[in-house]
Amino acid sequence: MSKLIVQKFGGTSIANAWCIKNVAKRIISYKKKGYALVVVVSAPGDATDDLLKLAHSVTNDPTDRELDVLLSTGEQVSMALLSMALNDLGYQAISFTGAQVGIITDKSYTKARIININSRRIKEELKKKKIVIVAGFQGINLEQDITTLGRGGSDITAVALAKALGAKMCEIYTDVDGVYTADPRIAREARKIDRLSYDEMLELAFLGAQVMQSRSIEVAKKFNIKLCVRNSFSKKDGTIIHEEAKSMEEILVSGVAVNRSEAKITICDVPDKPGIAARIFREIASANINIDMIIQNVSHTGRTDISFTIEKTDLKKAVNIVKKMAKKIGAKNVLEDRDIAKVSVVGVGMRSHSGIAAAMFKALAQKGINIKMISTSEIKISCVINKKDAVKAVKAIHKVFELQKPTRTRKAK
Amino acid sequence: MSKLIVQKFGGTSIANAWCIKNVAKRIISYKKKGYALVVVVSAPGDATDDLLKLAHSVTNDPTDRELDVLLSTGEQVSMALLSMALNDLGYQAISFTGAQVGIITDKSYTKARIININSRRIKEELKKKKIVIVAGFQGINLEQDITTLGRGGSDITAVALAKALGAKMCEIYTDVDGVYTADPRIAREARKIDRLSYDEMLELAFLGAQVMQSRSIEVAKKFNIKLCVRNSFSKKDGTIIHEEAKSMEEILVSGVAVNRSEAKITICDVPDKPGIAARIFREIASANINIDMIIQNVSHTGRTDISFTIEKTDLKKAVNIVKKMAKKIGAKNVLEDRDIAKVSVVGVGMRSHSGIAAAMFKALAQKGINIKMISTSEIKISCVINKKDAVKAVKAIHKVFELQKPTRTRKAK
Repeated sequence: MSKLIVQKFGGTSIANAWCIKNVAKRIISYKKKGYALVVVVSAPGDATDDLLKLAHSVTNDPTDRELDVLLSTGEQVSMALLSMALNDLGYQAISFTGAQVGIITDKSYTKARIININSRRIKEELKKKKIVIVAGFQGINLEQDITTLGRGGSDITAVALAKALGAKMCEIYTDVDGVYTADPRIAREARKIDRLSYDEMLELAFLGAQVMQSRSIEVAKKFNIKLCVRNSFSKKDGTIIHEEAKSMEEILVSGVAVNRSEAKITICDVPDKPGIAARIFREIASANINIDMIIQNVSHTGRTDISFTIEKTDLKKAVNIVKKMAKKIGAKNVLEDRDIAKVSVVGVGMRSHSGIAAAMFKALAQKGINIKMISTSEIKISCVINKKDAVKAVKAIHKVFELQKPTRTRKAK
Repeated sequence: MSKLIVQKFGGTSIANAWCIKNVAKRIISYKKKGYALVVVVSAPGDATDDLLKLAHSVTNDPTDRELDVLLSTGEQVSMALLSMALNDLGYQAISFTGAQVGIITDKSYTKARIININSRRIKEELKKKKIVIVAGFQGINLEQDITTLGRGGSDITAVALAKALGAKMCEIYTDVDGVYTADPRIAREARKIDRLSYDEMLELAFLGAQVMQSRSIEVAKKFNIKLCVRNSFSKKDGTIIHEEAKSMEEILVSGVAVNRSEAKITICDVPDKPGIAARIFREIASANINIDMIIQNVSHTGRTDISFTIEKTDLKKAVNIVKKMAKKIGAKNVLEDRDIAKVSVVGVGMRSHSGIAAAMFKALAQKGINIKMISTSEIKISCVINKKDAVKAVKAIHKVFELQKPTRTRKAK
């Protein structure tokens, strides 16, 4: 299938009847150009949040298995409506749930990982020239139980299908024109980025640019599937994400990201013995909770504090685990902080230039913003700060790296 | 499984969080008595109508296959929420879609018939002492495509599961105390019936008493599954539906039903030749449209009029077919009438008593109500009248047969 494209439409792109018809017309414009099309859809608009509210109306602590049964209906509604809209315009379309197209996952309800895709049925329908619509975000485990892939899981469905079907391009449609140097709602001078490497996009996604889910970018990188993030309501080109190009070496900072969905846990006065940290984080990992940053201070007294950040949605679960552990290992008390934000700068060029971190810290200091945690990688620097300072921080960093200017004219800090 | 009960809860019984918790408590009261429980749920409240509205917001003529994909999400929401509510109260429950428990149907989207149930998974979970929740109204065909069983299809899911699992009792929960001698909203003096034969219930259901779907009663009769129609919001006994008892012979009329969901089509001036009617109705049947009453007048001129009634939802489709047929067979024109109602009296005793029809016609005549069509069977008499006369007709018939009185004290007309 050489002319196959996988297109993924997010919730805002199919929020209502008008949006769905708009998406149908865009799909048809590709069909007319001769492309074979597999379309992945999210739940419409706020459907997932509405379903979560429903669940919490009957219980404070919904069972994960049943939550997945419930949440998976959102995409099923979208896929049927989009298929109907295409049929209405005279095009053959057929919709499938994750279970129906054999998106086989592991057993981790609410955060399942795809282990295999049985693409037989999709290929059959593509051969019949049909437009194939697939529910994003969901799969089925080997016991035939419905699973979901976690927030943003529709992206991974799209990329995994592109891989399974041999598509070279995967378009991710959203309600913005592409990936920006910063969130335009925070920094009005932010510019759209034309091209990014997988690694840069990965850091940006991971760090809070909510355009794409990070696992899906990892998979795209692994199988070299070109991604295009673009706006379903405009004809503009979007942002291409692909292998690192040579010209990128000159760029220092590509963008600033902010993530306000994490919380910080601190375990105070932990005995500083080998294996203690490992025990704590093994317990947390076995509860399927992802840890982001970890900081352990140097110990002078034989005891130390360990801090780490996780998604706020996991906070309750994690605190329970950590409190039990604290008792066992003889730590003092456990603190939680929900009011944090993580601001990060990302850029491939960073790895061979010093001074980026210094410029970032200076920009924050000049605005009187206190840094609570720092973490760095080859292509990013992240600082945890007070949530209330997040907007101020993004603006200051955007300015100090001159991200509002076209790439070539920026000063290297 | 000797102590197995299948319980079905209709949309009004699980319309919101309060109702769902109420139903969960009722289920638990049975569990505590030692019953094994399989619970079938409909879509909550108006969910099915809301989904239909969504479909019609993107197209005037939704594809049947995609409509089933869409509508089947309603029950999936209910089953997950009820399962969560039971888990929340400390009971193990697990929910399944029609596809997951192998409710295999034929290919007729929107009106599929169950051809087999693979009860393996349900039996496994019952052995683990779990309460099994199953989505009503839906199944899967041999191509793994989602199908639905038509309006009221959750009843047939419940009865078919009772058969497949060997349950002797199937409880149908709704928002009324049982089956009444007439719709209490129309005739305030209507009484709840304690016991009915399958045949009487069948006629009542078919004739418009919206308590149970008629196909499900047929299946219950065939496999001798005792039914109990009762109120999910009260502890009252409900109406038992079972094999005909001897004592019933004395009853003449059990109840009055009214159906306002049908429409009438008349084909005028049809050549009165053998095979013409067969051709017309074969065409309609092959479009999967059910015909209720058929009237053909005696022909004096070599030409005749044929009238028949169908569900209003099928009217557009049927008129299109009939118009094409009318041209081919040389009939004159095709009339449609949406403003009809069918009132019926039902009773086992009727078959051995004359005078019931006469009493019914007289009651209508005294109120100046014109009869448009008549149809009779061993245990019912139906008259099609103007829709506007429906309430008046039910009241008059209820009165003439003294249905407000206890059975023994009624006069035989």
